[in-house]
Order: sequence, then C-alpha cells, then structure tokens
Amino acid sequence: MAIYTHKALYDFAHAIFIKIGCSETDATIASDTLLSADLRGVDSHGVARLSGYVRLWDKGRINATPNIRIVHESPSTAVVDGDAGLGLVVAPFAMQVAIEKAKNAGTGWVAVKNSNHYGIAGYHAMKALSHDMIGMSMTNASPLVAPTFSKERLLGTNPIAVAIPANEEPPYVGDFATTTAANGKLEILQRKDEPAPEGWIQDEEGNVTTNAYGVKQGGALRPLGGDRSNGSHKGYILGSMVDIFSAVLSGANYGPWAPPFVSFMDPVSDPVGEGLGHFFGAMRVDAFRPADDFKIHMDKWIRRFRNSEPVHKEEPVLIPGDPERAMEKEREANGIPILDAVENDLKELGDRFGVSLKG
Amino acid sequence: MAIYTHKALYDFAHAIFIKIGCSETDATIASDTLLSADLRGVDSHGVARLSGYVRLWDKGRINATPNIRIVHESPSTAVVDGDAGLGLVVAPFAMQVAIEKAKNAGTGWVAVKNSNHYGIAGYHAMKALSHDMIGMSMTNASPLVAPTFSKERLLGTNPIAVAIPANEEPPYVGDFATTTAANGKLEILQRKDEPAPEGWIQDEEGNVTTNAYGVKQGGALRPLGGDRSNGSHKGYILGSMVDIFSAVLSGANYGPWAPPFVSFMDPVSDPVGEGLGHFFGAMRVDAFRPADDFKIHMDKWIRRFRNSEPVHKEEPVLIPGDPERAMEKEREANGIPILDAVENDLKELGDRFGVSLKG
Repeated sequence: MAIYTHKALYDFAHAIFIKIGCSETDATIASDTLLSADLRGVDSHGVARLSGYVRLWDKGRINATPNIRIVHESPSTAVVDGDAGLGLVVAPFAMQVAIEKAKNAGTGWVAVKNSNHYGIAGYHAMKALSHDMIGMSMTNASPLVAPTFSKERLLGTNPIAVAIPANEEPPYVGDFATTTAANGKLEILQRKDEPAPEGWIQDEEGNVTTNAYGVKQGGALRPLGGDRSNGSHKGYILGSMVDIFSAVLSGANYGPWAPPFVSFMDPVSDPVGEGLGHFFGAMRVDAFRPADDFKIHMDKWIRRFRNSEPVHKEEPVLIPGDPERAMEKEREANGIPILDAVENDLKELGDRFGVSLKG
Repeated sequence: MAIYTHKALYDFAHAIFIKIGCSETDATIASDTLLSADLRGVDSHGVARLSGYVRLWDKGRINATPNIRIVHESPSTAVVDGDAGLGLVVAPFAMQVAIEKAKNAGTGWVAVKNSNHYGIAGYHAMKALSHDMIGMSMTNASPLVAPTFSKERLLGTNPIAVAIPANEEPPYVGDFATTTAANGKLEILQRKDEPAPEGWIQDEEGNVTTNAYGVKQGGALRPLGGDRSNGSHKGYILGSMVDIFSAVLSGANYGPWAPPFVSFMDPVSDPVGEGLGHFFGAMRVDAFRPADDFKIHMDKWIRRFRNSEPVHKEEPVLIPGDPERAMEKEREANGIPILDAVENDLKELGDRFGVSLKG
C-alpha cells in the first residue's frame, strides 16, 4: 500500500482524460468527480476505476467528446442525452440543469439517458447545497441484484443520495446502495478471505450463501432487507424505483438490459434504450419555507439525533455524511492510501499513455 | 371474526365522521381514504383506527372543520397547512395541489404541516395515476424507531409510496414502512404468541430481541436493514429523509417531537412545529418523454420482472402492488374480515353516536 496526495492522483487522472481526448474542461470535471470518491473513502468508485473507463473508451463505448444536451423539457424537468460521454461529465451537466430549473420553478428534476458510470451518487447531490437547495441523485447500474423471490439478476446496486443543507452544522448527506451491502464490501471480504454475513448474497440457485465469491460464481446480491421476512421486498422497491426513474423515464436501458461497466462483457444485443440512466433532483428550500428557518431547524434536528443516547458509548449515533466527511478531512491532510494492485494498474495505464504517477 | 361488505364499513365510517362534525364532502373523502386500507389488506390502517381518530377529536387534537390552505408556493411547490384536520382529508387536498402544480410545471411537490395520521401512503400516491403522472407520498409518524446505534426512539415508521402508471399492465405501486417490519406485523405476532425475527426489534437497552412485546416494553423498532452489518444505516437514512421532507420542509414536528397517534399520550410540551407532516409528489410522465412511450416501456419492465425465474416455483416474482391489488379484488367480491376486538370497538363507537354497523 502506498500513499498519494489528492493532487498527485488528480493530476494523473486529469492527464489520462486529456490523453483519451477529453477537453480541458471535461477532464477537470471528470477528475473532480472521480477523486471525490477517493477522498470520501469510497475507494471502489475512485481512481481504482480509471482504467475501467479507459477500457470502455477503447471499445468505443465511451465518447470523449460528447455533445451533451437537453432533448426534452418542461418548467421543472428535463431529459438529458449524454451522447455516450463519461458519466463523470454527463452527471455534473445534468445536475446543473436541475439546479437552474429549481431557480425558476422551485424544483428541478432531470432524467439522463445514454450515459455511463457516474462515480459516487453523493457528489452530485451535494452540488445543490451551496444554492440552499436539497439535492438528490440516483443511477441504475449493471445487473447484479436479484429481486425478492428471483433467481435472476435484474437490477444494479442502484444507489440513492440525498444532500440537505443545515446552518451551523455540516450538511446531511445520505448516499447508499439499495442492496444489503455494496459490491465494494464483497471485494474487501474476498481479500481478507472472510465469509459474508447472511443476507448479502444468494447463490446460483437463489439460496442464501455466506460465500463472498457467490456473486462472481453466478449468484446475486440481495436487495436491502436481505430476505422476505426482513423486508427485502422494500429494498427491491427502492432499487426498482431508481431503475424506473433513471432509465424508463429517460429512455435509457433498464433492468437486465443495463450495460455492464466491465468492458469484457458486451452490452445486450437487444437494447431497450440508450446507455445507462441517471436521475437528479434539486429543491430550493425557500420554495417551501424561508431558507434560514429551514436551516436552523436542520441544526436542531442534527443536534438532537447526534446527541441521542447510544447503545454503546463508544459508538455514538451518526448523522448521514459524518463518516465520509471525517474521511475527507483525514485524507486531505494525510493523503489517500492506494492498494498495490490499484497502483500497478495506474502505472500500467501511465506507461501506455506516457503519463507518470507522482508519489 | 365477522365479514362486512365494503359498503357497510364505508357507510358506518361516513356516519361517524358526520357525527363528529365533518362536512358531507370531508366525510366522503375521509371514508374513501380510510377504507382503501381495509380493501388493500392493510388492516392496521383502516376502520380499526376509526375510534383512535375519534379519541383525538375528543381531546381537541383533530379539527373536524379545518380551513386547509396553501400558505407558501412556487411554480412547482407548495406548503399546505392542514389546520389540525383529519390527515385522511388533508392529504387528498395536498395531493391534488401536487397534481395541479404538475399540470403546469411538469412536477408538483407539496409539504404539509399541522396534519394528523393520513391512512395508507399508497392511496395518495395512486391519485396521480389517472393523470399519467408518477405519484409519491410519505409521512412522518409517532416516534417508535431507533436510528442505528441509538437507544432512543427518534423516528416513526415513516412510509414511502410510489405509484407509476403502465399501459396494459396494472400500475407499479410500492408502499412500505422504512423499518424492517411495520408495527401491524408485531400485533399479529402478539396475537399468535410468536417471537419476532431477529432484526425487527431492540429492547430497552438497545439489544436485539425476539420479544414481540419489545417495543411496548420500552424498546424500539429497527430501521430497514435491522443492524449495521445488514445496512440499518440505510433504513435510518430513508426514515430520516422522510422525516425531514415531511416535517422540516413544511414546519411540522419532526423526529421525537412528532405527535403520538394514541390519544392517551400527550404531544410534547416543547413542539418544534405544528402537528404531523407529509410530503407528496406528482411528476407528469410526458414532462420527460411521450406518455405512451413511457407506459409501453413500463409494460415491458413489468413483464420482464414478473416472468423472471423464481427461486421456488410456488413463489413467483411479484411487482410492487400485486399483493394489495389481489387482496382488493378478493375483498370487493367477498367482503372484509373484521377481528372481534375491532368489531366490538366499532359497535361501542356506534352506540355512542347512535350509528348502527350493518352486517
């Protein structure tokens, strides 16, 4: 494991995006989006994915010079066609459209088609905060999740993020996959050779398994809840709602038709739409009540929850966003740890494009 | 257990609402809303609650002749003051405002303060369907749920409902409490003297318990996920998002300040807002893509999921809304079973107001 500064990784990613043909502006936006994952501790969605994006570009599935544009709109809505661009660039464009709509109409809601993996959901939702808006962000993803009672993988880990501004307190930022556990957590167990808790995974036959390789071996992740008696039908509703908002509303590929992120798997031959889909929302707080009123009550909400009596003294009650914010502070100060496998992958990528990764 | 027709129960509820002073229109709206729960099989939210509403009216906490009105608005948003009216009447008013906003702005989002228990979330969301809109509905509720790591009850079961129109297929209607299990399910276990699955409940000390009376004995329901390793922090995000949208945006009481439904518990002496809060949304499908396009793709989505290979042949994969729709059909044809305890409660109520419950 090596430690890199945010700037070193950012500069590297930026140089790679320029090498594949992105404009200066797009390379900046893409690097910002990508690196936000490393800073916030979502290592599976940061520079570890850079070579994956490049492999999709190699296959012609990512367009480095997209014409991202609004193709349908109403006062409070729009549909954005990402033109097969990097989701890392398409998503910030679409979130900005949502924010502009909200300025005029009170709220803005943007569905996106023809996009790709967009990094971490929370980054996009948080763009609303500085405008005193509530931000929302969701995306569909490669099918890895079996609905309750299903043997087949029909949904992605389909995350939902919501960011809510406060006054003196830091903002509330919820960002979660609609499965019991995200795929990144399985990778951690696999590296440690540990079993998965019951409820995370089912095997090829649909039976619950603690085999951390269960998904790779033809099984599936389970929706949040884990099984019927613990509410997996609710996780299935959440994941499918994200799928429908992101892809059926926009005209992207939904459910099992969603394109795989990994370049060695081809997209389906009978698409039902274009690319991957996202959905963004922005709500002006003062479209409901004066912004200061709202933010002062958010402070009160946050303080009451944070100060509630914990079950164990050493585990205080957290506000959504607390762990990621602590991680961001720590990594800004002390650098970002990069696993050997990821470092080697980045160095190979650097060799190919003549870009050096500085320590 | 006795069986009553929908009409018999509807007429009874209607007569009671008239007796407490509701207008003819409001009594009709309230009875429609209330009975939709019995029809759809959510017995805990139907006529079984009628005497509870009346007890709140007895205490002056429900206003039978409210001046329900918009107190703040933007092109796509509004805040509605329910004037302490029955949630069963306030919510349909607010949902209609959301629909009207959506007609002009593409979407409509309405936060409600100063309301009470509003029946089942799904009923309100479904109002959008006939307009070719997606409907959403959520509400906060009496605090019974402990956030992850908390010993204290700070949230209600805070349900979320989403209703999405299709073409030839029946609509997609998701409606779920953001806890592992709804409170009604505990009552069923208590009647059968059965233990609760692990993950539903924690005891007074915050430890997981299978005691179905755990909540009544000072414990709490757990957020969807059940514990940290199975994602209870995600259920906590969902429940708290509902609380903030419903109550902090609107100016209602949030978190542990939410007023209790049961009349024998007084509201807190230091309210942070007015009454209970709800949040509704309506999105015109054609604000995103032509409605027929959308609905034809929803048919395709629904058929693909419904026909996916099940783990067990006898348990086919369901579409959200399937079980409730089947129940509605069955109860419309064969009547609604009413438990003896509920029947006695209704008869007492009838005796008090001189209204007879016809079989």
